[in-house]
Amino acid sequence: MLCIARLFRCKQVSAYFKMSFVTVEPGSDFPIQNLPYGIFSTPDNPRPRIGVAIGSLVLDLSVVKHFFDGPVLSSKQYVFEQPSLNAFMGLGRAAWSEARATLQKILSASEPVLRDDSDLRSRAFTAQEQVKMHLPAAIGDYTDFYSSKNHAFNVGCMFRDPANALNPNWVHLPVGYHGRASSVVVSGTPIRRPNGQTSPDETQPPVFGPCRLLDFELEMAFFTGPATELGSPIPMDKAEDHIFGMVLMNDWSARDIQKWEYVPLGPFLAKNLGTTISPWVVTMDALKPFIVPNSEQNPTPLPYLRHSDNYNFDIKLDVSIFAEGMTKPAIISQSNFQNMYWTMKQQLVHHTITGCNINPGDLMGSGTISGLTPTSLGSMLELCWKGTRTVDLGNGITRKFLQDGDEVIFRGYCETEGYRLGFGTCTGKILPALQLQF
Amino acid sequence: MLCIARLFRCKQVSAYFKMSFVTVEPGSDFPIQNLPYGIFSTPDNPRPRIGVAIGSLVLDLSVVKHFFDGPVLSSKQYVFEQPSLNAFMGLGRAAWSEARATLQKILSASEPVLRDDSDLRSRAFTAQEQVKMHLPAAIGDYTDFYSSKNHAFNVGCMFRDPANALNPNWVHLPVGYHGRASSVVVSGTPIRRPNGQTSPDETQPPVFGPCRLLDFELEMAFFTGPATELGSPIPMDKAEDHIFGMVLMNDWSARDIQKWEYVPLGPFLAKNLGTTISPWVVTMDALKPFIVPNSEQNPTPLPYLRHSDNYNFDIKLDVSIFAEGMTKPAIISQSNFQNMYWTMKQQLVHHTITGCNINPGDLMGSGTISGLTPTSLGSMLELCWKGTRTVDLGNGITRKFLQDGDEVIFRGYCETEGYRLGFGTCTGKILPALQLQF
Repeated sequence: MLCIARLFRCKQVSAYFKMSFVTVEPGSDFPIQNLPYGIFSTPDNPRPRIGVAIGSLVLDLSVVKHFFDGPVLSSKQYVFEQPSLNAFMGLGRAAWSEARATLQKILSASEPVLRDDSDLRSRAFTAQEQVKMHLPAAIGDYTDFYSSKNHAFNVGCMFRDPANALNPNWVHLPVGYHGRASSVVVSGTPIRRPNGQTSPDETQPPVFGPCRLLDFELEMAFFTGPATELGSPIPMDKAEDHIFGMVLMNDWSARDIQKWEYVPLGPFLAKNLGTTISPWVVTMDALKPFIVPNSEQNPTPLPYLRHSDNYNFDIKLDVSIFAEGMTKPAIISQSNFQNMYWTMKQQLVHHTITGCNINPGDLMGSGTISGLTPTSLGSMLELCWKGTRTVDLGNGITRKFLQDGDEVIFRGYCETEGYRLGFGTCTGKILPALQLQF
Repeated sequence: MLCIARLFRCKQVSAYFKMSFVTVEPGSDFPIQNLPYGIFSTPDNPRPRIGVAIGSLVLDLSVVKHFFDGPVLSSKQYVFEQPSLNAFMGLGRAAWSEARATLQKILSASEPVLRDDSDLRSRAFTAQEQVKMHLPAAIGDYTDFYSSKNHAFNVGCMFRDPANALNPNWVHLPVGYHGRASSVVVSGTPIRRPNGQTSPDETQPPVFGPCRLLDFELEMAFFTGPATELGSPIPMDKAEDHIFGMVLMNDWSARDIQKWEYVPLGPFLAKNLGTTISPWVVTMDALKPFIVPNSEQNPTPLPYLRHSDNYNFDIKLDVSIFAEGMTKPAIISQSNFQNMYWTMKQQLVHHTITGCNINPGDLMGSGTISGLTPTSLGSMLELCWKGTRTVDLGNGITRKFLQDGDEVIFRGYCETEGYRLGFGTCTGKILPALQLQF
């Protein structure tokens, strides 16, 4: 606990952390402007519970729930004792805003209720390095979109041709598909190279064995808020009420399995080997200062998909690989969430237009976020251009697709002149395939 | 309660119901050989709880849980107080068999513990017509396969050509895709005709409006049992341990929306407008007497998909439409589950071969079950052959696709010389589309 106590002793505070009594080091992802929510447990209390990241600490909301005494939350403090964020997500925007205001108040440098109560502080804070993070929500349904035009175009060029790279529907609706919720795991969970069926030679029968073209997909995803009823679409002017916050997401993909299986019903086993998300959910309130203009949409979408307000976000993203034998990870791609063609509001409105209902804690992925340049591509498939190029990791180490032992690390963050606001990391290490006998 | 009491007074019992003290009328779906599980509530006790169908009654397992005193269940009686079947499904085959043996014992004509305890009987039994049925499980993930060769061939003929009707992968693996779990509803829930985006004229931009080609798909589905870990495939010799039981399923489909959206990532909004399942889960133990030879598979599948034991089932299926203005439903199709090319064991093994984990209560659909004849097709798309024929409902009423007010009714049952064992019905009525203004 000494380690933590030191973090409250700062008399001289820089611009980076002057707003909270908790030390926030320059370069931290978690200043008081962020306050992302996650689910954590500790060695001495294995019960998963809700925490908020601040600097290098986690604030345990089950310990400070009595401070949430505003008009919406005073009767709902039980949500902060849950083992997942679902109940809190289900309360809606008024509750989310009130919770954020309470957190900013009790963590501020000028507020004594937590700052000056050493007993409460010692119970409420834990170092992030001492906690185990869990999935932020029980994910009822997981949907993955395909909303980066550069990525869709690149894949279309590789598998069809540049003249017909985008399918006709792509510019009219946010293409998406249902994914597997059970195989979504939290950052740090190892991913086993899958065995599966592939067709390396189309003139021969398919073969079975370990995936040879294992890939990542650089994505972000949002968690949904209050539930809707089956048969009741979410109109555009209500879409924001149902978007709680965002995480980084790695949609691991077995390209050789995908190629053989995906016609006509879409990706299936090539994706359900695992999907990794970062543990801290950054709220839309925290991301508001980083709104940037929406991508230009030509043709203009149908009226149900139109909105005039900006809902695109300047979130810098990078991908590193830390392979065995390397001393530090090598950055292989730098992209940005603003490469998205369709907004999250458009994705959600489209998703529900035929009447699909949503629940708190549903997860909706962006699709692979690729930029226009060769160093801003969001998958190995694109970075190695279907195996025709190598990706340099330094010291003579190169890659086309992922090898066993490779750790893939996503980072995402926003920056203004005043502060940096980040998502932490989304990581996973490839384990060798099981040796299956038949 | 008079009505129910009458059902226990039978002195003269026919072969149909001699085994239980509960009257089972000839033609009932629910003799003592069946004993399907469902979730029900009653007007005077709205708490959803587990029931077993017997004759025209429901046995409330929360009231008789103390009878489950065998070696597996004596310490697990709490599962019979749950509001869903998930916990019971998660216990595995030994528990399922023990529960079935206990139920057959306490319901038998020769066993007095329930038969002769009028107070317990009055608390334990409710007439089916007085209960409200709920979804049998909290469905974590829902997968839909495409495993009837006749259906896949028919659709391939309509959208491609007979020479290339089946994609190359179809005979090598059970093609499937992830569906939307949130929009699975229990039989009787009305289904609203969706609005959505379609492209009736490929030379023009897409349009928005009510679906014009609304369809059903005649399917069955199975619920999974004990959970597995991510990265651990289920081998073929363990597959049966994870298959709890079956229901009827209507995979409502908006064909015009599907046609425009589904390339390249598969069906999305065309399916998540609602998927209806029957409320009673018929266990695999009950279905054992109706096992028939598997469909011949040519080419022989890869070793991981092979099993020599029979796991196909003779389950008669029929589809009726009850349209406004009709006095009774008209049967429009009669099919059979044994039309399946891939077995449920093959579907489950394939689903997990890349490491996908399952949880108790996952739902896996068969795909549309079509026979070879024009009157055994499992969708309006096939029955009207893409709009080129009409389907006769009698009295001059015809259909190509579904109209507002149409109720679609699936029935499924097995028969031997000794008894009939059924699934009840799976029904849904089409409500008109919402009038959306933009």
